[in-house]
Amino acid sequence: MILKQLARTTVLLGSIALAGNALAKGPTPVYSANITESEVLAAQKGWGDALIQIGNDYTSGGYVKAKATATSVLEAAYGYNMGPVLFKPTLTVAPQTFRVTKEGALAYFVGGDSNYPKDTGFALKGWKKVEIENAAIHINGDVASTLGHVIFTDKDGKKTTVDKTWAFKKDDMGKIRIVVHHSSLPFSGS
Amino acid sequence: MILKQLARTTVLLGSIALAGNALAKGPTPVYSANITESEVLAAQKGWGDALIQIGNDYTSGGYVKAKATATSVLEAAYGYNMGPVLFKPTLTVAPQTFRVTKEGALAYFVGGDSNYPKDTGFALKGWKKVEIENAAIHINGDVASTLGHVIFTDKDGKKTTVDKTWAFKKDDMGKIRIVVHHSSLPFSGS
Amino acid sequence: MILKQLARTTVLLGSIALAGNALAKGPTPVYSANITESEVLAAQKGWGDALIQIGNDYTSGGYVKAKATATSVLEAAYGYNMGPVLFKPTLTVAPQTFRVTKEGALAYFVGGDSNYPKDTGFALKGWKKVEIENAAIHINGDVASTLGHVIFTDKDGKKTTVDKTWAFKKDDMGKIRIVVHHSSLPFSGS
Amino acid sequence: MILKQLARTTVLLGSIALAGNALAKGPTPVYSANITESEVLAAQKGWGDALIQIGNDYTSGGYVKAKATATSVLEAAYGYNMGPVLFKPTLTVAPQTFRVTKEGALAYFVGGDSNYPKDTGFALKGWKKVEIENAAIHINGDVASTLGHVIFTDKDGKKTTVDKTWAFKKDDMGKIRIVVHHSSLPFSGS
Repeated sequence: MILKQLARTTVLLGSIALAGNALAKGPTPVYSANITESEVLAAQKGWGDALIQIGNDYTSGGYVKAKATATSVLEAAYGYNMGPVLFKPTLTVAPQTFRVTKEGALAYFVGGDSNYPKDTGFALKGWKKVEIENAAIHINGDVASTLGHVIFTDKDGKKTTVDKTWAFKKDDMGKIRIVVHHSSLPFSGS
Repeated sequence: MILKQLARTTVLLGSIALAGNALAKGPTPVYSANITESEVLAAQKGWGDALIQIGNDYTSGGYVKAKATATSVLEAAYGYNMGPVLFKPTLTVAPQTFRVTKEGALAYFVGGDSNYPKDTGFALKGWKKVEIENAAIHINGDVASTLGHVIFTDKDGKKTTVDKTWAFKKDDMGKIRIVVHHSSLPFSGS
Repeated sequence: MILKQLARTTVLLGSIALAGNALAKGPTPVYSANITESEVLAAQKGWGDALIQIGNDYTSGGYVKAKATATSVLEAAYGYNMGPVLFKPTLTVAPQTFRVTKEGALAYFVGGDSNYPKDTGFALKGWKKVEIENAAIHINGDVASTLGHVIFTDKDGKKTTVDKTWAFKKDDMGKIRIVVHHSSLPFSGS
Repeated sequence: MILKQLARTTVLLGSIALAGNALAKGPTPVYSANITESEVLAAQKGWGDALIQIGNDYTSGGYVKAKATATSVLEAAYGYNMGPVLFKPTLTVAPQTFRVTKEGALAYFVGGDSNYPKDTGFALKGWKKVEIENAAIHINGDVASTLGHVIFTDKDGKKTTVDKTWAFKKDDMGKIRIVVHHSSLPFSGS
């Protein structure tokens, strides 16, 4: 845009003197690192879609296909490339409650890792629907946190509701990545 | 989304009266610390309006009134309450080029401070119009930087153009404050 | 500081030429909005201390004193003054799982609010020790998130471990406030 | 802290061998996007070193070598890969005062671009020394702004002082890039 402006300016300057960027056509170029609410909502939906996709790929292509998809999802949608991710999955137990590395996260989603013997593969359970009900959103620069319920429906129509906190960071390329993910079953109340 | 959840909740709870935020109507509550382009443009315009106001107050109420207005402007529109402001006014010279304290900024705008003997009061020159032509804007969290021309028109219609960089920070109260301000006359080209 | 430096510089320059900022006394004034790891660790410890204090005040001064202390803690250590806080306490249940307002948080900590009938007052349980074991920390500008275990010891020496995510925001005054708080009992593994 | 947790865990689990990151040695993993004062000072020095290098390469290898070095510097040290850079070089004039594209910046540093006919190549002037005297620094997340004097010494020992504002942004890879750069000759005072 600027280049075009300057080229045009140069031509015009051949005949008449013109001042400033009064010649500018189009809006001022604006860079923004900030994450927006709509980007957050899209990333949440993308997470749900990806979870369903892994399960579908497990059905259609078996474990190898599901693991490949899960790996792609982790690389595209989580921030493990930037550093540790603060991930507390729904169903993990001590001493492997927290999955701050990509390996730990992958084990949680598809199991099959002898280093995480209790993991059975949350994404292989055949989830068919993921609904997100946000209680509140906190936006701060390129990071946004959300808190709310996520409701998973399995192939038999059975629903499971979890309490979930996410923080999403928009990276330099404009991609939204999960950097915090705390999921828990509701307190049983007893 | 919350509304749907709450509607369902109400049904489940039968006829019990609920209070607290469970009954909240309206969209998901969202907090955002981020500054927006429109807030930046409004702050730029506000700066120009304030400069003109100081000059008008000088005419109508003399130095005392102008200084009071300038003080209010500095307290409301600059970030001296948060720390040093990176302010390089258009017409200052070494060794007092930079005005990182409020006192130095006030001296620049209205003069009359023996600690800044070369200051004659930029805001007292009777500016009647301030136009802003942004070349580019850079938004990063609660801070946004702008670069462009600012054109001042005095009471005789004479225009002075300066090259100006600003950075604005949105504070906790949502107020936009100048934290960087570098203004310079155009290079003379010789 | 700058003024003193410049005045001195002028004197010295009257006789000898001096180079660079060798003349500068004291460091360059630096403003930073950023939160540090040590500030985060101190804020975590402060949260634990405050929880114990509320319980102690309940013992020594009864409900009125405990509620007053809890109110002060919420006003000083949480970000409800800035907007909704993403707070999922350990023991809440739907439809009041999330406490995005100060009222909801206060009810959780000290109970006694008919709008939150299931709350019995988590801070009144007589906690004597709070230990924090971070699994990872994510620092981004003035906000830092932590994930880890928090171990509460009651007056009988019985320990309760929770999985906890916090996000802390450093406000304009330099105070560290909790803006996200998700706490959950460990998955039972069955 | 993690180590203590794991030691305890090991006891509880008896003699079972554990793998995964449960066995991790060392401190809590911490990710930080924030820029530090020392990173800023190093980036400033790097800018000066690069300017001198371009000039030296011009002497040793001619225009082609100087242009190649300048291109590398712009790609490594400026944020043109992220978006427009708010660059007002010292010696540019309207209507090409601002260089928000990499092409415009390159033309300023090495000249030889018919689209910027007044550019003669600031980096080709044979600068031998670059000194930086900061008046103040403003750090906000991954961006830091600086204001101060920069003193250039040429091969004859002649010094030129400019007033300079920079803003540096730390990118996802930890590289520090210039996103704002406003340089101006001191006001002549007349």
